[in-house]
Amino acid sequence: MSLAKRGLAELIGTFWLVLGGCGSAVLAAGIPELGLGYLGVSFAFGFTVVTMAYAIGHISGCHLNPAVSIGLVAGGRFKAAELPHYIVAQVIGAVLAATVIYLIASGKAGFEIGGFAANGYGEASPHGYSLQAALISEVVLTAVFLFIIMGATDARAPAGLAPLAIGLTLTLIHMISIPVTNTSVNPARSTSQAIFAGGIYMEQLWLFWLAPIVGGIIGALVYNCVSKKN
Amino acid sequence: MSLAKRGLAELIGTFWLVLGGCGSAVLAAGIPELGLGYLGVSFAFGFTVVTMAYAIGHISGCHLNPAVSIGLVAGGRFKAAELPHYIVAQVIGAVLAATVIYLIASGKAGFEIGGFAANGYGEASPHGYSLQAALISEVVLTAVFLFIIMGATDARAPAGLAPLAIGLTLTLIHMISIPVTNTSVNPARSTSQAIFAGGIYMEQLWLFWLAPIVGGIIGALVYNCVSKKN
Amino acid sequence: MSLAKRGLAELIGTFWLVLGGCGSAVLAAGIPELGLGYLGVSFAFGFTVVTMAYAIGHISGCHLNPAVSIGLVAGGRFKAAELPHYIVAQVIGAVLAATVIYLIASGKAGFEIGGFAANGYGEASPHGYSLQAALISEVVLTAVFLFIIMGATDARAPAGLAPLAIGLTLTLIHMISIPVTNTSVNPARSTSQAIFAGGIYMEQLWLFWLAPIVGGIIGALVYNCVSKKN
Amino acid sequence: MSLAKRGLAELIGTFWLVLGGCGSAVLAAGIPELGLGYLGVSFAFGFTVVTMAYAIGHISGCHLNPAVSIGLVAGGRFKAAELPHYIVAQVIGAVLAATVIYLIASGKAGFEIGGFAANGYGEASPHGYSLQAALISEVVLTAVFLFIIMGATDARAPAGLAPLAIGLTLTLIHMISIPVTNTSVNPARSTSQAIFAGGIYMEQLWLFWLAPIVGGIIGALVYNCVSKKN
Repeated sequence: MSLAKRGLAELIGTFWLVLGGCGSAVLAAGIPELGLGYLGVSFAFGFTVVTMAYAIGHISGCHLNPAVSIGLVAGGRFKAAELPHYIVAQVIGAVLAATVIYLIASGKAGFEIGGFAANGYGEASPHGYSLQAALISEVVLTAVFLFIIMGATDARAPAGLAPLAIGLTLTLIHMISIPVTNTSVNPARSTSQAIFAGGIYMEQLWLFWLAPIVGGIIGALVYNCVSKKN
Repeated sequence: MSLAKRGLAELIGTFWLVLGGCGSAVLAAGIPELGLGYLGVSFAFGFTVVTMAYAIGHISGCHLNPAVSIGLVAGGRFKAAELPHYIVAQVIGAVLAATVIYLIASGKAGFEIGGFAANGYGEASPHGYSLQAALISEVVLTAVFLFIIMGATDARAPAGLAPLAIGLTLTLIHMISIPVTNTSVNPARSTSQAIFAGGIYMEQLWLFWLAPIVGGIIGALVYNCVSKKN
Repeated sequence: MSLAKRGLAELIGTFWLVLGGCGSAVLAAGIPELGLGYLGVSFAFGFTVVTMAYAIGHISGCHLNPAVSIGLVAGGRFKAAELPHYIVAQVIGAVLAATVIYLIASGKAGFEIGGFAANGYGEASPHGYSLQAALISEVVLTAVFLFIIMGATDARAPAGLAPLAIGLTLTLIHMISIPVTNTSVNPARSTSQAIFAGGIYMEQLWLFWLAPIVGGIIGALVYNCVSKKN
Repeated sequence: MSLAKRGLAELIGTFWLVLGGCGSAVLAAGIPELGLGYLGVSFAFGFTVVTMAYAIGHISGCHLNPAVSIGLVAGGRFKAAELPHYIVAQVIGAVLAATVIYLIASGKAGFEIGGFAANGYGEASPHGYSLQAALISEVVLTAVFLFIIMGATDARAPAGLAPLAIGLTLTLIHMISIPVTNTSVNPARSTSQAIFAGGIYMEQLWLFWLAPIVGGIIGALVYNCVSKKN
């Protein structure tokens, strides 16, 4: 497939990740008695990856996340030269999804944007977790994420089930860390929501590029260390 | 298989989609403390597709939805000549399921039909979302639905897992949009419930034929655009 | 495998179905704020089948349910001569599980047995549904259950995924009908709980043998009608 | 693969089991209205196994649990000589994860360690279940766990789906028994949390080594008894 078409697939896939994950959080998480809660939002994020990986895995690899693309470069599974194309497509897709969420959400009387499912620490953390806690959480969880991505797509792993394993990993990551940072592990997802939420969320955005990328590189390298046969 | 038998399979499959999705919504969603909530109803809709696709995918393709059948025609995967047969079967199956739900639900003292899990916008939206929000939501979500259906059933995708991917996509669509329109993306499902709920729900039914069909066509065409190798 | 070993596998499998499904209902469903609710119990029942079908499907076929065994005889997939052995094993396994649940549950101060997750209609229905509603619910849902079991284990269906499809069908059946009858579709599961709950639950047990068996036979026959190629 | 690399894989895998399972319990389970509840924690534990088994199953077998490793020795699937290496790695991984949970959790003002998701009975049981109830629960559930592990990884079972079956079994085990003991079935997971919670949890730790190991051995032996063809 051409790089242009693969980039378009990444754009659509990341659109879906943000529409499903942040969209369910903004529209359906907090409704009293009936709302999805943190469990539902965790499933939503994971299911975006499960579903899209079966749909476009054979086209672009379905990264949907700059930290994944960069981690896969570190792990020797993706070309560094294609990073800019992938990352730009992922961020555009995320911003388009945030726009659609905004258009739908603002169709309800009395809508206020609030945090708009953006990521944060300290006073912007959903439950007041410190910068240090946020940093540890994002680095460690993205490291495990890339470790599992590398392992589940290893030629020795069962064929065809990597999308399920990887998506459920993202679900689990959210189950652990929504209270801490609202869960990023994905700089594209963080960027799109911060643009709409503004203020403190834009000021803190650096962390949600830095920590997932560092964690992703660590996770990919550790997997290679553990799994090499020699 | 003969068209008659495939139509019968679609009738039974759509019966299950409405019985499981709308049935769980009507009977079990809103019970205080113990009820399924929006998360449970989202899983219910998705699981109707996961389960029935493994049961009848090899018979009829398991569309269960006029917007899916029409989208697949647009995407070159289904014959236009067979559309009427499939769509009529889907609507009949849906209405039969709504009848069964009515028979069970009315077996409880004090039953009132209320919205009966019908779809709506404006004052008929579960949380008061506007016509414009409803339109965007239904078009975009059905587009992604068909995009993933096309991708997960592509010959290059992992064999045997499309039912899981497609069903979980329907779950995710509900996680996002139950508060907006009660989630249609399926004109047969909307029709069966509107017939029982009547009034404003019948008046608004046009949107839940128009938007899913438009979205479905868009999604199928976009997938072909992204995935063609030329 | 010998009939004795297959029967033992059915005994252990049905033990797991009741321990997981009724055990989670008795021990964990109704705890304020943290409890599983009807959604969790629905997943529990379904997961007993998903997990056990991967473990013993290759030994006994993993029926775990007299209505399934009888339905499969009607559908031409199981020998009538082996029915008594299977059904007795299923009932014994269920009763053993109910005994273990009782031993655990009674280890908490102030334990009262109550309904003990037994099935019922009218005043014994969890939410007061009539005999007619219970009958329709159990017949129709067991019919769909057998239809999907027949379809997902058809040689034309994707290999290896029938356990997932069948287990999620049982989850979905519970999502619809726990409020109506506490969901049976399985005479063995109904019998074990009725023995412990006693009184009205024993008086009503006939319905939870009759309705699932009738529904199961219908579902299997309908599948053969729809799926035969001639 | 070398024993050293397999041990490292077990260390990382058990790190994930405790980080995901106990981490979600400590950080996200009890938040009013939005928290995961027992259902979410049950999914979290199970998903650690589903995801890691696809990532490292081909490296170490993904035991993540001394009771699993010992049970597999009893069942003839693992070498007794490798037990010490595996068990030490599992305990180290679990303790590292508990340390990370502590570092994150203590980053919130007003943090108190409390039970820290440790296991207990009697007054240390989440809902006051007796020692006898705890013992029965842990022995029986670990027995079924090993029975299903042995069955789902049997050469006659569908290839590639054992991780899903085994992980969902762990989910189901938690759905049943979190109220009783907070669910162990895994001495490494119990040890890491008891070290941090201290006091009564350390005094009761013996039970959560004894019962899972006894149960695991029973389950593996029963599976061989049921499944042998002779």
